[in-house]
Amino acid sequence: MTNQKEEVVEEVEEVELEKLEEQEETTTQEEMIEEVVEVDELTLVQQELEEEKNKSIRLRADFENYKRRVQLDKEADYKYRAQTVLTDILPVLDNFERALAIQTNSEEAASLAKGVEMVYRSLLDAVAKEGLETIESEGVPFDPNFHQAVMQEKDESKESGIVLQELQKGYKLKDRILRPSMVKVNE
Amino acid sequence: MTNQKEEVVEEVEEVELEKLEEQEETTTQEEMIEEVVEVDELTLVQQELEEEKNKSIRLRADFENYKRRVQLDKEADYKYRAQTVLTDILPVLDNFERALAIQTNSEEAASLAKGVEMVYRSLLDAVAKEGLETIESEGVPFDPNFHQAVMQEKDESKESGIVLQELQKGYKLKDRILRPSMVKVNE
Repeated sequence: MTNQKEEVVEEVEEVELEKLEEQEETTTQEEMIEEVVEVDELTLVQQELEEEKNKSIRLRADFENYKRRVQLDKEADYKYRAQTVLTDILPVLDNFERALAIQTNSEEAASLAKGVEMVYRSLLDAVAKEGLETIESEGVPFDPNFHQAVMQEKDESKESGIVLQELQKGYKLKDRILRPSMVKVNE
Repeated sequence: MTNQKEEVVEEVEEVELEKLEEQEETTTQEEMIEEVVEVDELTLVQQELEEEKNKSIRLRADFENYKRRVQLDKEADYKYRAQTVLTDILPVLDNFERALAIQTNSEEAASLAKGVEMVYRSLLDAVAKEGLETIESEGVPFDPNFHQAVMQEKDESKESGIVLQELQKGYKLKDRILRPSMVKVNE
């Protein structure tokens, strides 16, 4: 631009031309500045739009993940919803077993015991419907995930590590152990 | 613009000026077209940005509402989590009451009955911990929200509409009725 300005001649047309050129120059410069400003604004807005879109995508992904987690939590909560009350009922089941283990001699007591056993069965049915199960122990290999060894004995006629006797019933709620069974294990 | 063009005069300077003006005119028109195009693009992008921001705001609000609803659901699920198993246990409680209502004559049966009553108490404690409560009925005014009238009687000594007798216990889980009590009401 400076070079062009130095080429100024004295002739009117030349001057005219020169003026026109100068005018053009100025306009072009202004235009460029304007363009730069506009392009800058456009770029900025486009960048902001891009960021906003990315934020939306992340937010939507977070939302979906949250929904999935909530669903899984809900299923677990539902599956084990009776865990607290069933855990509290385990001693009741123990008490039932103890009461029913007592030998009855009189007919009256035997009749009452029969009634009590029916009540016990109805309770077992109610808790079984909710997913409470006894843990298998006598005659199966000792498994620390299900059994708690409180005694050991040596029985040559049986395999080593086999549960010889169940001392207290163990219970699980579906696949979750509520209480391991207390057992006597073969050495 | 047309007016400006018609104002053209013959003087050189005027012509010069005119040329300059024409030059300016042309540039301005071109600029305007460019500007319109750019402004259009900028406006479009700005509009899109605006929409994207609004979408984000709505999405965020949806997310917050969802979280709030999930929290409330979770609290309700937690509060009434034992409802199914407790409902299944109600007949067990009835059976207990029936078994314990039997008169015992022998000492053996009385001893067994005492044991059974202890088992019953331990079951009542376990379910009470979870929020199971009996519904008050005898002596209170009949309320269809809590009581189911299965018999009526006329007792002049008592107020009309009073529950005279409870025929079967009713239960609620916290503030939710699991089973109304079956009652005899004073006419």
